[in-house]
Amino acid sequence: MIAVLKNTATDSQIQSIVDWIRSVGLDVHISRGEYQTVLGLIGDTAKIDGDLLAGLEVVESVTRISEPFKSANRKFHPDDTIVHVGDTSVGGDIFTFIAGPCSVESEEQLIGIAREVKRLGATMLRGGAFKPRTSPYDFQGLKAEGIDLLVEAKKETGLPIVTEIMNANHLPLFEDVDVIQVGARNMQNFELLKELGKTRKPILLKRGLANTMKEWLMSAEYIMAGGNENVILCERGIRTFETYTRNTLDLSAVSVLKELTHLPVIVDPSHATGVARYVKPMAYAAAACGAAGLMIEVHNDPKHALCDGPQSLTPEQFGEVAQGVARILEVARA
Amino acid sequence: MIAVLKNTATDSQIQSIVDWIRSVGLDVHISRGEYQTVLGLIGDTAKIDGDLLAGLEVVESVTRISEPFKSANRKFHPDDTIVHVGDTSVGGDIFTFIAGPCSVESEEQLIGIAREVKRLGATMLRGGAFKPRTSPYDFQGLKAEGIDLLVEAKKETGLPIVTEIMNANHLPLFEDVDVIQVGARNMQNFELLKELGKTRKPILLKRGLANTMKEWLMSAEYIMAGGNENVILCERGIRTFETYTRNTLDLSAVSVLKELTHLPVIVDPSHATGVARYVKPMAYAAAACGAAGLMIEVHNDPKHALCDGPQSLTPEQFGEVAQGVARILEVARA
Amino acid sequence: MIAVLKNTATDSQIQSIVDWIRSVGLDVHISRGEYQTVLGLIGDTAKIDGDLLAGLEVVESVTRISEPFKSANRKFHPDDTIVHVGDTSVGGDIFTFIAGPCSVESEEQLIGIAREVKRLGATMLRGGAFKPRTSPYDFQGLKAEGIDLLVEAKKETGLPIVTEIMNANHLPLFEDVDVIQVGARNMQNFELLKELGKTRKPILLKRGLANTMKEWLMSAEYIMAGGNENVILCERGIRTFETYTRNTLDLSAVSVLKELTHLPVIVDPSHATGVARYVKPMAYAAAACGAAGLMIEVHNDPKHALCDGPQSLTPEQFGEVAQGVARILEVARA
Amino acid sequence: MIAVLKNTATDSQIQSIVDWIRSVGLDVHISRGEYQTVLGLIGDTAKIDGDLLAGLEVVESVTRISEPFKSANRKFHPDDTIVHVGDTSVGGDIFTFIAGPCSVESEEQLIGIAREVKRLGATMLRGGAFKPRTSPYDFQGLKAEGIDLLVEAKKETGLPIVTEIMNANHLPLFEDVDVIQVGARNMQNFELLKELGKTRKPILLKRGLANTMKEWLMSAEYIMAGGNENVILCERGIRTFETYTRNTLDLSAVSVLKELTHLPVIVDPSHATGVARYVKPMAYAAAACGAAGLMIEVHNDPKHALCDGPQSLTPEQFGEVAQGVARILEVARA
Repeated sequence: MIAVLKNTATDSQIQSIVDWIRSVGLDVHISRGEYQTVLGLIGDTAKIDGDLLAGLEVVESVTRISEPFKSANRKFHPDDTIVHVGDTSVGGDIFTFIAGPCSVESEEQLIGIAREVKRLGATMLRGGAFKPRTSPYDFQGLKAEGIDLLVEAKKETGLPIVTEIMNANHLPLFEDVDVIQVGARNMQNFELLKELGKTRKPILLKRGLANTMKEWLMSAEYIMAGGNENVILCERGIRTFETYTRNTLDLSAVSVLKELTHLPVIVDPSHATGVARYVKPMAYAAAACGAAGLMIEVHNDPKHALCDGPQSLTPEQFGEVAQGVARILEVARA
Repeated sequence: MIAVLKNTATDSQIQSIVDWIRSVGLDVHISRGEYQTVLGLIGDTAKIDGDLLAGLEVVESVTRISEPFKSANRKFHPDDTIVHVGDTSVGGDIFTFIAGPCSVESEEQLIGIAREVKRLGATMLRGGAFKPRTSPYDFQGLKAEGIDLLVEAKKETGLPIVTEIMNANHLPLFEDVDVIQVGARNMQNFELLKELGKTRKPILLKRGLANTMKEWLMSAEYIMAGGNENVILCERGIRTFETYTRNTLDLSAVSVLKELTHLPVIVDPSHATGVARYVKPMAYAAAACGAAGLMIEVHNDPKHALCDGPQSLTPEQFGEVAQGVARILEVARA
Repeated sequence: MIAVLKNTATDSQIQSIVDWIRSVGLDVHISRGEYQTVLGLIGDTAKIDGDLLAGLEVVESVTRISEPFKSANRKFHPDDTIVHVGDTSVGGDIFTFIAGPCSVESEEQLIGIAREVKRLGATMLRGGAFKPRTSPYDFQGLKAEGIDLLVEAKKETGLPIVTEIMNANHLPLFEDVDVIQVGARNMQNFELLKELGKTRKPILLKRGLANTMKEWLMSAEYIMAGGNENVILCERGIRTFETYTRNTLDLSAVSVLKELTHLPVIVDPSHATGVARYVKPMAYAAAACGAAGLMIEVHNDPKHALCDGPQSLTPEQFGEVAQGVARILEVARA
Repeated sequence: MIAVLKNTATDSQIQSIVDWIRSVGLDVHISRGEYQTVLGLIGDTAKIDGDLLAGLEVVESVTRISEPFKSANRKFHPDDTIVHVGDTSVGGDIFTFIAGPCSVESEEQLIGIAREVKRLGATMLRGGAFKPRTSPYDFQGLKAEGIDLLVEAKKETGLPIVTEIMNANHLPLFEDVDVIQVGARNMQNFELLKELGKTRKPILLKRGLANTMKEWLMSAEYIMAGGNENVILCERGIRTFETYTRNTLDLSAVSVLKELTHLPVIVDPSHATGVARYVKPMAYAAAACGAAGLMIEVHNDPKHALCDGPQSLTPEQFGEVAQGVARILEVARA
C-alpha cells in the first residue's frame, strides 16, 4: 500500500503518521520526493483500512497494490479450479453448455426442452423458478413448483440443474439443485452470499450490472470466505450508454479474469445482448477467447415464452451453436 | 404502447398479431406508413409483456408510452406525499436533515454526536449498524448492538433514527427504528423490498449504483405494491467513468423525480462524493434545486472513524452546512 | 416518426399540430388512446426536426422509427460494401490484417516491421505519423516525415498503408496514403469528416470513446453524404467504469452493425484492451463473431516503443495470431 | 511516479530498470516489500512516458502521483485566474451570465433576444453560427453570416459575444468575437486547440461527452501551452446510462476543479438537461455550489427555434432565473 502525502505535510505530521502505521504492526519505507513524500507500507496491509488512511488530513491519495481478494486470487492458487457438478464439471477440459428456458413454465415445456438440449450437446439444464423482475406486476416465476419441475427434468434426462436463488430463506428448496445461481442484481447482496458460503453447493455468480471485476471477485470472496470454494463466474454484459443491445458483453473480462483468478468463467450471450440473432456470434466469440462455457436460453416456442422470449434460441438453433462452438474450440484450445 | 412492424410484414401476419392483441382485451389502431406499419395498443397495456411482443418475428420495436410505475406515479397522485416520522416528516415544509456517523461505534460516540447534531439542526439521526462492505474482511458493523445504541440515542435526544437493513430476517430488530434504509446495493433486492412492503415503516430507498430513475421508481413500486406508501427516495450518486469523485451526484434527478413521482427525494452528498470538503457545496446545490432534505455523515473524530472517515464532517462543519442550507432555502423555496 | 401527446392536449391543440405537420408535406395518422393521443407521421420525416416537435408544449415524447442514416443503411443497400484498397480489399472474402507500429519511429524500424508483418500475413501496413496525445507534452509523431517513411515502406513491400489524419489541412500530405484513418477523438469532428467526404480515398472511421452505434453511423453518413462511399468502420472499445482494461471492447457491435449497415467493420483489439497479452484472445473472438478484419499494433521492440508499447505484439506474436485467426475463420465463415 | 514491480522480478532485472530510470536523469527510491518491490521515481517525471514504463515485463503497474497538467494546475498558480472579456470578466467577483439562442437565425431574432437578456441581467451574448450536428442533414448554422449578426448585436447592446468554432481555418471570421467556444465534440480536437493556443482570445472550453476532468484539464493545457492563458471551463453534462435527461450534469466537477485548477468554471444547464423546465433548478444548484457563471439558452420563441428549442427559456424565464441566482449567490458567496 502506497500513501502519497500532501506537499504541506510537516516533519512532525509525517512522523506521527509513520508511528501510527508502525503501531498496527506494519513497516514503512519513506521516499521524500522533490514535491511530495511517499510512504510504502510493508506487511499485511489487510490490517489497514485504506479509506481511513486516505482520510487523514496530510494524505493526498492511497493506492493499494496487492489485490484485496485472497481466496479467489490466482497468485496464491496458481492452478485452475475445477468445479464438479454431478458427472460433469466446470473449468476443466469439458466445455460447459448450460441451456434451457428463461422461466420454467410447465412440465411438458421443460422436459421437452431438456431432452432436446441434452441431445444437442447441453451439459446442464437451466430454468428460472424464482424470477427477479424489475416490475412487481410482471410474472415472478413458478417458485417452488418450478424447482420441482426442474428436479423432475433432471430425473428424466440426467442433466444437472441450475436455477437462481433470490432469498437465503429459500435454501431448503434448493437441496436437489446442482448449481445455485446468483443473479446480477444480487451480486452485492452480501447477506445472501454469506449464506451460500456456508453451503458446499456450486454457485454460479453473475457479474453485476455495473460492477468492476474487482468487486465481482470480492463477491466471490464472500462465498469463499465461508468455506465454499465452488464458485463459477458468469459474464453477462455490463451497463453502458449503448442502446442497440440490452447490455454490453465484456468479453475481455474473460481474458483478464483468467489472469486474476483460478475460478472458471462462463459467458451468457442471451442476457448480454437480449437478441436471439446475436447469440450465435457472441457464443462463438466467447469460445474463441477462452471462456469455460456458455449459458444460453433455449425455448421450444420463443414467441410465446413468458419472459425474455426475444433472446431465446430454438433447440435447433442451439444445436447449431453447439456444433460451431465445438469446432471453434478445436482451434482456440489448440 | 406502440409496436413498429418490420417492412417485410405481410397482411396476414399483421392480421394475426392484431387478433392476438385484441384477444387479451386491448384495442389496436393501425397506421400504415410508406415504409412501415405501426400499431398503437389502446387500453390497459400493463396486461401485455412488451418483451414478448418485441420478440415476435415481424415486430421491429416496441415503445411503452405510459410509465410502468403506478403507485409512485404523480399522474395518478398529483399531491406531494409527506412521510411522517415521529414528530417530524419528510416531504412537507420541514427540510429534513439526517445526520450521524457512517457506523455506530460506541455509546459514547453515538450519543455525543447525536446531541451535537440535534443542537446544530438535525431532524433525524443516522448510524450504520449493519454495514454492507465490498470486502468480507472489512468491519461489518456492530449489528444488533448498534441498533440498541441507536435506540438509546433516540431516547436521549428525541431524534428519530434511520439505519440500514440488509436482510429481511433482521426485521424484528428494527421495531424501534423509525426509518429503515435500503442501500444502493440492495435497490433491486426484490425479496427484501417485498418484505418491507408488508410493514408500514417509512423506507428510505437509495438509488442503485447504476440504476435509471425508472428502475428506481419500479423498486419503490415493489414496496408500495405491498401497501406501504411511506417511501423516501435518496439520490446518492451514480457510477460513471470519472474517478475524482467516488460517484457522480445526479442532482438533475431531483428535478426529474419531482415531475414523475409524488414521493419525497433527499440527497446524500457524503456518499456521492466520498470527500468531506465537497459535502458543503453539494449540500447547498441540493437545497437550491429543490431536494426535500439531506443525509450527511457526521463524526466527532473523522480521522479515526471505523469506516468512511474521509467523507464525514465534524459536528461544527455540519452546523455550518445546516445554517447555509437554511438560507439557501429561503431563496429556493420562495 | 411517432409523437405522443400529453393527456392535457385539447382538441384544438391537436388540430393545430396536425395542420402544421401536414403543412410540411407529411401525412398523419391519429390514434386516440384511453389516456393519450398518439400521432404517426407518414412520409419523409427527415423533413421534420424531431427536437423541434418534442419541444411543442403538448408533446410528451417523439420517437423516430426510421433510422436517421440513409447512405450507410443496409435497408436501402442490401449488399455488403467492398472497399478496394490497392490490390486488396476490405469487406469481401479477404480477411483484412492491418499491422504495424503505433508510431512511425525510423526508416529502419518501419521497413523492418513492414517486411515481417507482410511475411506473417498482414494485408496492410499501419503506422502513426500524426499522433493524437492527451498531453501536449507527449511525443506527437514524426508528422510529414512519418508519412514519407510509410510511403517508402509501401514501395519496399507492396503493402497499402493506413495512417491517421488530424487536420484537413494536412490532406495534401496524404496523397500516397491508401487508407486515411479518423481516430476516436475526431469521430465527431464534422468539419474533418466533410473534407474527407470530398475525397475518394478509403476512410477508416474509428468509433468514438463514448459514442453509440447510431452516432457512429451518422459520422459515416457525413463522409458518404459528400460522395465518398469508401468507409470502413473500426470498433476499438468504449469507455466504461471498468479499469482493468483501457476500454471495453464491444464485440456485439460487429453483429449489430452487420444488420444496420452494409459497410465493413473491423476490430482493433490493441487499443481496446491496452494490454498485449489480451490481443490474441480478443482477435480470435473478433474473427469468430464475424469481423471483416483486424488492426493490430506490432513493434519489433515493444519495450522501447515511443508510444503504446505495452499493447504492441512482436512480429512473432502477430504471426501466431494471424495463423489462429485463419483457422477460426474456417469455422466462423463456414 | 510509483512503479510496482511484479513479484517475479529478479535482482538483476530490478537493477536494470533502476539504471534506466537514472539514465534519464531521475532519482529512484526502492522499497522492498514482503511481496513486491516498489520504485518511487523522484524528479521531473514528465520526462518519462508512464505507458512505456508500464510496458516493461517486470512492471505490474505505474501510478503517476503528480498531475500531468502544469499551466492549469492550482499548485503552481494558487490565485484564481480572471479572464477579462471587454468590460466584464469571468472568474472574479462578477457572476457571468451568458445568454442567447442556440442558433443565430436572423437579425431581428438575435437583436431582440440580445436586448432582452441584457435588460434582464446577461453579461454576454451567445449564439451559434457554426453548429455541430450529429446528422449531416440537419441545419448547420448561418456560418459567417451568423457571426456578422452577432457582431451587429454586440454593437447594438454592448454585450461581448460568445460563439463556437469548429475549424481553425475559420479563425479569421472570429476576429470580432470576444470569446471563442470549443464544443464538447471537439474537446480533444488537439489540432484546433493548438491553433487557439496561438491566439490570445478567451476560450470557453466545454467538457467532452465522456471525458474525465483530468483529460479536460489536459485539453486546457494544449491551449495554455501555446501561451494563451485565457481559458474558461464549461461543465455541460456527461454521458451516462440515464435517459430522462440528455446528459448527467456533474456539478461536483465544479468543486473538484476549484481545487485542481485556477481557471474559472461555468455551467451550462441547458445542454446538460435538454429540458427547459430543469434549467432553473440546475442554474440555482450551480450558483449554490460555486460556479463562476452560467450559460443559458434563451429564445424569443422556443417552440419555433431551428434547433434545441425544447431546452430554451423565454427571456422572461431567463430573467426569473437571473434574479433567483443573484439571491442564491448572496448566501453561497457569503
